[in-house]
Amino acid sequence: MELLKNELAEAQKIQKQSSMKTHNFSAGPAILPQSVIKEAAAAVQNYAGTGLSVLEMSHRSKEIAAVMDEAEMLVKDLLGLKDDYSVLFLTGGASSQFYMVPMNLLNENEKACYIDTGAWSAKAIKEVSNFGNVEVLASSKETTYNYIPKNWEVPSDAKYLHITSNNTIYGTQFHNIPETDALLIADMSSEIFSREIDANKFDIIYAGAQKNLGPAGTTLVIIRNEILGKVQREIPTMLDYQTHINKNSAFNTPPVYPIFVCLLTLRWLKAQGGIKAMEAHNKKKAALLYNEIDSNPLFKGTAALEDRSYMNVPFLTANPDHEAAFLEYCTANGISGVKGHRSVGGFRASIYNAMPVSSIELLVSLMQSFKPE
Amino acid sequence: MELLKNELAEAQKIQKQSSMKTHNFSAGPAILPQSVIKEAAAAVQNYAGTGLSVLEMSHRSKEIAAVMDEAEMLVKDLLGLKDDYSVLFLTGGASSQFYMVPMNLLNENEKACYIDTGAWSAKAIKEVSNFGNVEVLASSKETTYNYIPKNWEVPSDAKYLHITSNNTIYGTQFHNIPETDALLIADMSSEIFSREIDANKFDIIYAGAQKNLGPAGTTLVIIRNEILGKVQREIPTMLDYQTHINKNSAFNTPPVYPIFVCLLTLRWLKAQGGIKAMEAHNKKKAALLYNEIDSNPLFKGTAALEDRSYMNVPFLTANPDHEAAFLEYCTANGISGVKGHRSVGGFRASIYNAMPVSSIELLVSLMQSFKPE
Repeated sequence: MELLKNELAEAQKIQKQSSMKTHNFSAGPAILPQSVIKEAAAAVQNYAGTGLSVLEMSHRSKEIAAVMDEAEMLVKDLLGLKDDYSVLFLTGGASSQFYMVPMNLLNENEKACYIDTGAWSAKAIKEVSNFGNVEVLASSKETTYNYIPKNWEVPSDAKYLHITSNNTIYGTQFHNIPETDALLIADMSSEIFSREIDANKFDIIYAGAQKNLGPAGTTLVIIRNEILGKVQREIPTMLDYQTHINKNSAFNTPPVYPIFVCLLTLRWLKAQGGIKAMEAHNKKKAALLYNEIDSNPLFKGTAALEDRSYMNVPFLTANPDHEAAFLEYCTANGISGVKGHRSVGGFRASIYNAMPVSSIELLVSLMQSFKPE
Repeated sequence: MELLKNELAEAQKIQKQSSMKTHNFSAGPAILPQSVIKEAAAAVQNYAGTGLSVLEMSHRSKEIAAVMDEAEMLVKDLLGLKDDYSVLFLTGGASSQFYMVPMNLLNENEKACYIDTGAWSAKAIKEVSNFGNVEVLASSKETTYNYIPKNWEVPSDAKYLHITSNNTIYGTQFHNIPETDALLIADMSSEIFSREIDANKFDIIYAGAQKNLGPAGTTLVIIRNEILGKVQREIPTMLDYQTHINKNSAFNTPPVYPIFVCLLTLRWLKAQGGIKAMEAHNKKKAALLYNEIDSNPLFKGTAALEDRSYMNVPFLTANPDHEAAFLEYCTANGISGVKGHRSVGGFRASIYNAMPVSSIELLVSLMQSFKPE
């Protein structure tokens, strides 16, 4: 134990000397590219030579209208979306999509189907009954959501199927997109833009920005236009997707700065080579980390091998008594946000697009050099 | 006309020499204090020595939890709110409060009363009928909302009375708070924290941040706790005020950065001497501008004298043909955002808390030196 303390003190000293670079493994709000952070700070001081902070500029100004337009255009471009989609930047988080989806799509006598793959799926399911019928086709709740259920069927009378395509807390991911005749809706909050997916197979994709796209404060919602306008109920103006489609997300004052930082991230993503390049980068990072988890006897993974996420990597110390010491060792070496969610315990490395390979290498090297008492 | 062109060229030269300071008279998103902008930019680069941008920090971190707590505490402190109020930082703008208020307060057989003092009041009124009965007690719509209706009475069966206490577009303001036995609800978006008001007389106060409190992206909602829990309907989790009260505005990921910038503004406000000092500052600015409007034969005001707003000052050129030239003269001298709303025309100077007297003095001096052809 004394040795460990010495080792920690030494590590802390080195960390201090290296100007305290922090490696951000937080699940969200999460890491952003360093170049984005730099541009985002500069725009707060003075936006594009206007003499104004981007924080105090009218959303009706030509500069901010251009930000909104370019962000929308880049989403369409990066995902290869066909013309019949609208791209919205809304507020209220993915949590607000949990009720906006059934409110906009489901009549009272119609049925929506859900796959329950985690806490966020469960929260989405809870909101449906206000608007129509809900059927949970499969759930992995009994095993703390450590796998993606397979071999379920969507009934022919389903209006839509809803999946949470990546499960932040449990580190599982749908590696095959379900085929269905029903509308297909996905919460992609923790994986949007991280891998090649045929986005045109979906009718709604939504994602809170603060995991893989930008800071907290806006939610990306992608909608196939023709699915709207088919429910009987009166929808409050602000909750009707059509309101925001008609006004390019500026029916009321949009969250300008969060959207602006999303735009900076989208530009960065495109400059990196787009989603194809990002997928290769993410698979490389995930492989490095999973290889260490699987080969190092001090650690073990929690999710079913075939369903492992490329974005969120939960793992445990083989001996639970070593948990606190490894967390301290990580912290002393500039690793932040790696503590696991309370429902899984242990550790969770969230390795979103903006996470460089060097941060994964540091974490792996710490797993290798970790010497529990 | 040639003379005017020369004058403009000269003004543009002076403006360029003075390092292009821009005087931001925008109606919202609007001016923020320079010290707030500086701190807000620094925190994007590195928050409080954490080595992380405030944009990428978890809302569950102790640093961000402290931001949320302090912002809530300062709102209570500045307004002198009693203990039975909750302070929330939500999203969706004041526009989302238009339906959340009746959804949370009004049963289907109950009645809500509104005073129609502008486009925003009208939008609020439009959302009520989904949830209960609505009665518009008075309206100034027929005269382009240029005054605040008086001599109306709240019927004894009203559940609540809703007012828009300051009308951004038309430059009118309630100078007397209505007395009523019904619940009292106010949209204070464009005047929050600008003058001394007994906030404890209200049951709900709401305000989009982007006029007098911070950047776009969060909405301040102040609620007297005991008025909740009295409607029969099922409310989606995210739309139930009680959800956010129970979790201190962090049931889901809140819009961290917009709230952080609100906190910086609230600290600034307190350091300036609080709302009492702000009211004196605002009255001085408004008097300077209204005096010029009333004494200069080239200009005229649009709102009824007794209802004039201290925050938004609309005015016209006496001769409509001079409008374009005065706008150009303002722009050339570094004045931004002064074009009036299309429904009123002419000019609108929004002179929120953060606007210094020197910017008003500049505008007044331009009104004095303006020499139309």
